[in-house]
Amino acid sequence: MLSKKSAGIKSSAVRELLKFSKIPGVISLAGGIPATDLIDVEGIDTILRDILSREHRNLFQYSVTEGEEHLREQLSRWNKGHNLDVDAESIIITNGSQQAIDLLARVFLEKGDKVLVERPTYLAALQLFGYSDATVDELQYDAEGIDLNQLEQAMAAGGVKIVYLTPNFANPTGGTISYEQRVTIAKLAQRYRAVIIEDDPYGHLRFSGSPVPSIYSIAQSLFGKDHTVCYMSSFSKIFSPGLRLGWLAVPEQFHMATVVAKQALDLHTSTLNQSIAAHYLESGRINERVEMLKATYKDRRDYLIESLHEYLGDDITWNTPDGGMFLWCHLAENIDASQLLQECIKENVVFVPGEVFFARNPQKNSLRLSYSMLNNDNAREAGIRIARALSRLK
Amino acid sequence: MLSKKSAGIKSSAVRELLKFSKIPGVISLAGGIPATDLIDVEGIDTILRDILSREHRNLFQYSVTEGEEHLREQLSRWNKGHNLDVDAESIIITNGSQQAIDLLARVFLEKGDKVLVERPTYLAALQLFGYSDATVDELQYDAEGIDLNQLEQAMAAGGVKIVYLTPNFANPTGGTISYEQRVTIAKLAQRYRAVIIEDDPYGHLRFSGSPVPSIYSIAQSLFGKDHTVCYMSSFSKIFSPGLRLGWLAVPEQFHMATVVAKQALDLHTSTLNQSIAAHYLESGRINERVEMLKATYKDRRDYLIESLHEYLGDDITWNTPDGGMFLWCHLAENIDASQLLQECIKENVVFVPGEVFFARNPQKNSLRLSYSMLNNDNAREAGIRIARALSRLK
Repeated sequence: MLSKKSAGIKSSAVRELLKFSKIPGVISLAGGIPATDLIDVEGIDTILRDILSREHRNLFQYSVTEGEEHLREQLSRWNKGHNLDVDAESIIITNGSQQAIDLLARVFLEKGDKVLVERPTYLAALQLFGYSDATVDELQYDAEGIDLNQLEQAMAAGGVKIVYLTPNFANPTGGTISYEQRVTIAKLAQRYRAVIIEDDPYGHLRFSGSPVPSIYSIAQSLFGKDHTVCYMSSFSKIFSPGLRLGWLAVPEQFHMATVVAKQALDLHTSTLNQSIAAHYLESGRINERVEMLKATYKDRRDYLIESLHEYLGDDITWNTPDGGMFLWCHLAENIDASQLLQECIKENVVFVPGEVFFARNPQKNSLRLSYSMLNNDNAREAGIRIARALSRLK
Repeated sequence: MLSKKSAGIKSSAVRELLKFSKIPGVISLAGGIPATDLIDVEGIDTILRDILSREHRNLFQYSVTEGEEHLREQLSRWNKGHNLDVDAESIIITNGSQQAIDLLARVFLEKGDKVLVERPTYLAALQLFGYSDATVDELQYDAEGIDLNQLEQAMAAGGVKIVYLTPNFANPTGGTISYEQRVTIAKLAQRYRAVIIEDDPYGHLRFSGSPVPSIYSIAQSLFGKDHTVCYMSSFSKIFSPGLRLGWLAVPEQFHMATVVAKQALDLHTSTLNQSIAAHYLESGRINERVEMLKATYKDRRDYLIESLHEYLGDDITWNTPDGGMFLWCHLAENIDASQLLQECIKENVVFVPGEVFFARNPQKNSLRLSYSMLNNDNAREAGIRIARALSRLK
């Protein structure tokens, strides 16, 4: 009785692996999740007690679909301080940026449309586009960046409705798209009337190199308000994933249809949680926290790299990301990372095999290692365990 | 660039009317929203302070897609106390029951499918089905109940994938489907392999007459675990709409696909809010609150009926619901309720014209009056103002 599409979509391997992560003694390099001990619980508690001490009856009532004005204003102010010029009126509050992708898929995609994604790309975006009537094609993406010739040819051939990109410290590759490429992408989108989804959950977590302006900002400065770039980000990686809060900025021409879709989906996002986030931004505490997260994740990235160097040596290669949470790695051509995972589970260490991030023809020897939960000790131990598991496959 | 479907879906008239409701001096009979002064803010505060005083770091972290085990167990226990026998394992937590409808539409509907709805039916369900590839047909529904001959003929003709019903104090009609009809509906669904969506946000708010078992329970007792009825309800009408919490119970055969869809949509529902609701159920405070709501809404229903009797007399007819929040009314055949609304806005009183609740061929002389926000004084004043507006149309 299930629809064909629904019957064909599998549970995310990452979320299934989370179950293993919770077993005591297991070292998890699987989830793209912030370390629980880095969540500013004291800060949230202070905000919550403050809210409870004031008139707050309306926080438990229905609210407007766009999101609470207080939160949208604080987001606009905060983003302007980070070179993203977005008005409060352009912002729509969502249940994490996952829902923002869903909203845009709902608003734009129909039969005959094409979606272009980086190869490889964010697994849950692939899952979501699987519910649409569009087809998904992959853009070659390597150390040089996106294959812009391929992008232009695909757009010129017609039918490209959405280009889904994660320009900063991408999940899974950790890659960042250069300024020059972003300008070209913005121009191509405008010329061929394609929507860019700029998914940026990790953008605030840059710990080396220089920030690159968002495609949204570039398009806005080139084309004014009539551009086609939709920017989204999230509180999940910098504040609290459990509150399920993301935000989406869309050009005016798409605003009403997106709000109507949000209304149909779930009316609005939790009023209480929006208020917590608004007060947290207003308090300025978010800035200290982000600085602390960046310093910590940089250390953790370095711990993991050191451990891989020491215990796996030439058996593995990786990128070195300037931010975010992920090392994207490759084993020897003949090693299947899914088989390695099975051996690693026996050794109480888990990661995500890279194959799940491909729409087709996966690189079976790729894997994604998240360092967000590591300290110096378990990073070393993770390397030792992976090496032991790998030795059984060679 | 918008998809055809998206371009064709309008914002909900009800949510647009909410803007009027907030203007001081306006009496609103528009929203299906619980009175703000009846939300148990003190109870929620107590729970929240209690949570903050314990170890609660995990409440701000990612959680499982199905929903927090604590909440699902409390819901199972509480529902069993109200004659709905549903296991914790069958429950999926959603962002209000609105999202539950969306999940099921996503899981089941594809091109060629038919959805049957009561005529008239819940506006936002019509909106949501509008994003699917299915076509929507209406079932005749009057004081005698659903037209079961029409239902069986439609099912026998093939293609009916979902029958969407609100069996208790329906929105907008206030109607309740009888036990005998529910048994027949359960049997027909099983025979013709159609999914029943049993949307029951108002079921706990019965203030007269006897409770009727849910279609879910009936199907479960007739057919065991292999039935096709999906039951959903919400915390929005009995606890707090602003927390955006609903729940969905699906038969085992649909469970995995529904969880995968929820995962794709937004990973999971707010961990913090789920914990608040779980503790509130566990505290038992919910039962007192529901009793208080029932007594209050019964009074408010009666205030409104009295006012209509006194000031509108024969100019209007209505049902008398046994629970919920709505009077479904009709004016003389030649009066257009949308025109009446325009006159009423000038008089500072708003309601929802009935036409928005029809998939096609609306009854232009119908209207929905919500009594949830009324007391004795403004109910009288509402009647006076509507009568004054109506006198200008006669």
